[in-house]
Amino acid sequence: MTGTILVLNVGSSSIKFASYPADTDAEPVLAGAITGIGRSPKLAVKGRNAGDAIGPLAASDTTPDLIARLVGWLESEGGDSLVAAGHRVVHGGRDFSAPVIVNDGIMARLEGFESLAPNHQPHNLAGIRAVAAARPGLPQVACFDTAFHRTQSRLAQLYAIPHALTDEGVLHYGFHGLSYDYIASVLPSIAGDRADGKVIVAHLGHGASLCAMRDRKSMATTMGFTALDGLVMGKRPGRLDPGVVLHLLQDKGMEISAVADLLNGQSGLLGVSGISDDMRDLLASDDVRAREAVDLFIYRLVEEIGALTALLGGLDLLVFTAGIGENAPEIRAGVSTKLSWLGLELDPAANASGQTRVSTSASAIEALVIPTDEEGVIARSTRQLVG
Amino acid sequence: MTGTILVLNVGSSSIKFASYPADTDAEPVLAGAITGIGRSPKLAVKGRNAGDAIGPLAASDTTPDLIARLVGWLESEGGDSLVAAGHRVVHGGRDFSAPVIVNDGIMARLEGFESLAPNHQPHNLAGIRAVAAARPGLPQVACFDTAFHRTQSRLAQLYAIPHALTDEGVLHYGFHGLSYDYIASVLPSIAGDRADGKVIVAHLGHGASLCAMRDRKSMATTMGFTALDGLVMGKRPGRLDPGVVLHLLQDKGMEISAVADLLNGQSGLLGVSGISDDMRDLLASDDVRAREAVDLFIYRLVEEIGALTALLGGLDLLVFTAGIGENAPEIRAGVSTKLSWLGLELDPAANASGQTRVSTSASAIEALVIPTDEEGVIARSTRQLVG
Repeated sequence: MTGTILVLNVGSSSIKFASYPADTDAEPVLAGAITGIGRSPKLAVKGRNAGDAIGPLAASDTTPDLIARLVGWLESEGGDSLVAAGHRVVHGGRDFSAPVIVNDGIMARLEGFESLAPNHQPHNLAGIRAVAAARPGLPQVACFDTAFHRTQSRLAQLYAIPHALTDEGVLHYGFHGLSYDYIASVLPSIAGDRADGKVIVAHLGHGASLCAMRDRKSMATTMGFTALDGLVMGKRPGRLDPGVVLHLLQDKGMEISAVADLLNGQSGLLGVSGISDDMRDLLASDDVRAREAVDLFIYRLVEEIGALTALLGGLDLLVFTAGIGENAPEIRAGVSTKLSWLGLELDPAANASGQTRVSTSASAIEALVIPTDEEGVIARSTRQLVG
Repeated sequence: MTGTILVLNVGSSSIKFASYPADTDAEPVLAGAITGIGRSPKLAVKGRNAGDAIGPLAASDTTPDLIARLVGWLESEGGDSLVAAGHRVVHGGRDFSAPVIVNDGIMARLEGFESLAPNHQPHNLAGIRAVAAARPGLPQVACFDTAFHRTQSRLAQLYAIPHALTDEGVLHYGFHGLSYDYIASVLPSIAGDRADGKVIVAHLGHGASLCAMRDRKSMATTMGFTALDGLVMGKRPGRLDPGVVLHLLQDKGMEISAVADLLNGQSGLLGVSGISDDMRDLLASDDVRAREAVDLFIYRLVEEIGALTALLGGLDLLVFTAGIGENAPEIRAGVSTKLSWLGLELDPAANASGQTRVSTSASAIEALVIPTDEEGVIARSTRQLVG
């Protein structure tokens, strides 16, 4: 199959894109992002000056307009026509345990999950509609952040709430599945037989979660019904007593939307530090609150690794990935020190210099750093389904 | 000091009481409860037929009336006058890390915590006021469910929310502190040096939580700001994505009070099973949902034990206490099997026959069953403060 595959991750004010050769599992030909949509849009393309490649940009440019112009530019620039588009779609509900070629029926089902992820799902689906408008008939594939976790047992997915709510779909879905899928796919080539053992992957980005795997399948994860739960994140709290939500509403008289904003945008590293939602800023700061935010990030990471280790019945392999996981040796060292009781022994030199294997050869638990590639997973899945 | 000490645990519709000799650390002279206050009150006294010891009971009897009559009866029955009263008070906020003799200033501070525990604190304080009205000048002591946890590090108490809320007191308080205090006090006589090692106490009653201890001091606990978080409980969910609360409010349009009722009264074992909030009923049932509720209780218990073990950096001793912990060998066996990777080896015969030590002599982790005695702790603290 010649031509290119377009990979899109469409958010509320951004479009991340990459185009891949359709016939090989190669690096993207072009990749970049349009950010600031609706305010002051900017195009950035990796490795080159984007200039006004897709024409002048204005606050009035809508996401569908921008996607149409992007598609035209990518085809002219790549010298090859699009043969398919693959989209990141945050929520596949209970139904979708793998990527799927979209059609009207599928779109209707995916729209049914919008209330489960109101900040992401509508934008993801708008991206699919925009490509359909720009290139009618082009095969499109939806790749879900939730799909990788659908191998989990029913117990791992249950909340202890009235079963009528469970039946309606109030379950642990889990997210970051494209990242976990990528790590699972490359793990045997890096870790050999251990890849199929008891593995925890720590996806530590601006959003952060853990996935416990056995045989490279998801057994449990720290995010649940939404992306709020689990680890401390840039702006989200992670694990939080639901009684805190009731307190803010009942005793402090906050509006529901204000509580939602507080939990989605003012908590986490930003809330604790009062300084920044970016781990790099906090690690570079001397402020006592910045230090406290970092310490809490590590503390809660240790706690959640312990929880998943118990569910796995032990641990063979710990993988760090995503922005913080790949680039913050201080965080890896902080966590590993606190897991020494489990038999994890970090190699400080390997950790500091960014090696793939950061544990010593004597360590009972192997610790690895593996850069994730969510776009690559979408390209591969699209190629497989459409090819 | 001769005379007796009255121990009271006053709830919304019940008064639990016990009277202890003031001069020795002995068993209670009398103990029992008045239940059904406001509807159809009943007096029950342990080990005897209560008859109408405090006179005929009616729906119109108020808690202060009943306490006045109870005090009179206990004094006439015990043949000895009250020298002090000790009360269970659920919330001591950040300030109270030990029991305290109450006065007007203390009462005002404790009233300030009513919004933190609206279902319990006002009733607890009403009990103190009722005793003061019945016996003006009697020394009274408040013993807090939160106090034992005030030894925890700041990190263990923090949520990853804006620090202004933290400063206001939105913190992990933890509960069941009287039970943990009791276990900590008797542990050396049962477990020797291990008592000061890495210990997890599982208080598994209708409410349930874990406490991680080092040197018999609380290091971390599974309940947080309220008693909703952590383990699956009779009617409460334990750990729950705060996004579920927002979903119920925003997408399902539930009233805040209805969500509070759902989380406090319709979730947990009752919600999952649809049958009962009582573990005995579920263990005796063949219903698939009853089995699922029990399995989820064990699954989440394993998860939380793993989390606290990681925070402790290992585990030397696991103590089961309270109704389920003391009386459900199936639950102890279910949990212990899933912790065998940690080196916990259960002795099935000792477990089934209700021995204190339920682990084998070869087990790396010692597992004990110790009946808790929250009233005894209140009596002891009252005796020490007043004596």
